[in-house]
Amino acid sequence: MRYFYPQSLSNLIQQLAKLPGVGPKTAQRLAFHILHVPVKEANALAEAIIEAREKIGYCEICGNFSDEKICELCQDNDRDRSTICVVEQARDVVSMERSRSFDGCYHVLHGAISPMEGIGPDKLNIASLLLRLRKGSVKEVVMATNPNVEGEATALYLAKQIKPLGIKVSRIAHGLPVGGDLEYADEATLSMALFGRKEI
Amino acid sequence: MRYFYPQSLSNLIQQLAKLPGVGPKTAQRLAFHILHVPVKEANALAEAIIEAREKIGYCEICGNFSDEKICELCQDNDRDRSTICVVEQARDVVSMERSRSFDGCYHVLHGAISPMEGIGPDKLNIASLLLRLRKGSVKEVVMATNPNVEGEATALYLAKQIKPLGIKVSRIAHGLPVGGDLEYADEATLSMALFGRKEI
Repeated sequence: MRYFYPQSLSNLIQQLAKLPGVGPKTAQRLAFHILHVPVKEANALAEAIIEAREKIGYCEICGNFSDEKICELCQDNDRDRSTICVVEQARDVVSMERSRSFDGCYHVLHGAISPMEGIGPDKLNIASLLLRLRKGSVKEVVMATNPNVEGEATALYLAKQIKPLGIKVSRIAHGLPVGGDLEYADEATLSMALFGRKEI
Repeated sequence: MRYFYPQSLSNLIQQLAKLPGVGPKTAQRLAFHILHVPVKEANALAEAIIEAREKIGYCEICGNFSDEKICELCQDNDRDRSTICVVEQARDVVSMERSRSFDGCYHVLHGAISPMEGIGPDKLNIASLLLRLRKGSVKEVVMATNPNVEGEATALYLAKQIKPLGIKVSRIAHGLPVGGDLEYADEATLSMALFGRKEI
């Protein structure tokens, strides 16, 4: 008879191996780690999983992660409510915030238009965006979808919907990443960087 | 004010980042994964952690992982109880079993002698090994500690303790790994492989 780990240990390894980027070897290493840390620490991890899954939902206004009905950003009166930045994923909100260059509000689409994957505009959080815009206080919508085919298509689609409302629509700039190297830049990026050049 | 994730999400990210080999970026990716899978799957992971931590202990005889007082291997009457293989960690038992070349019993030391890290023989699971051996039914002890300084020192130390009991002590062979390449073998391994050569 081939010997395996005790039932509850092999179950833990199996559960961990379901996480993205975690193969059987890593799952085993993580499981051993969990068996070696104090019970308190292992339980803290388990409880964090349960609690996050219970509490975190999406903000009713913008679709961002939130543990309340309305997220912290939408509740914040210091933020400029006349500008909305549209992003694909909730994690992109944090990336944008890290740049410390935007103090407006956000709208999370939860994806991008992708006919290949059967994702049409109706599957995205777009209706609630148009509803927000029709209320009249928004002056500019900044499209910060990803700079790839799906992201561009989504930005263009939304621009078409929004412009008739008399709202300015802009797109974040394409160009060379700061600290990058011209030698390693691809032609498309370089061409966009040239196209978007500014007088200095 | 700088925006962060909601409390329970950033807590989950923090807890995940404590796992070995999981940095802040990976922790974030794992957390998003956990927020996106069905609640049932997220809870299964959390429960697997709690259950494993509750149920898994060490076998009273050999020190292997076990969810009962005596592990599956020590309970198995088909295994040869006259041979004991000594390994450093409980995970090494599974590695040995995978080779399908050993049908004796095991003894897990939970480490190796390492004066640098302040680990003396008294901190290892050695007393219970000597107790097992004194019962008289064991004929051979195979030292399968790691082939490094600490593992060798531990094997030699144990050999000194066990030989006076009239029990044969052996050490697993050093040599070139199967499928390896002579070109990439280090001198120490090559020298051990030469030293351990066998007539064909």
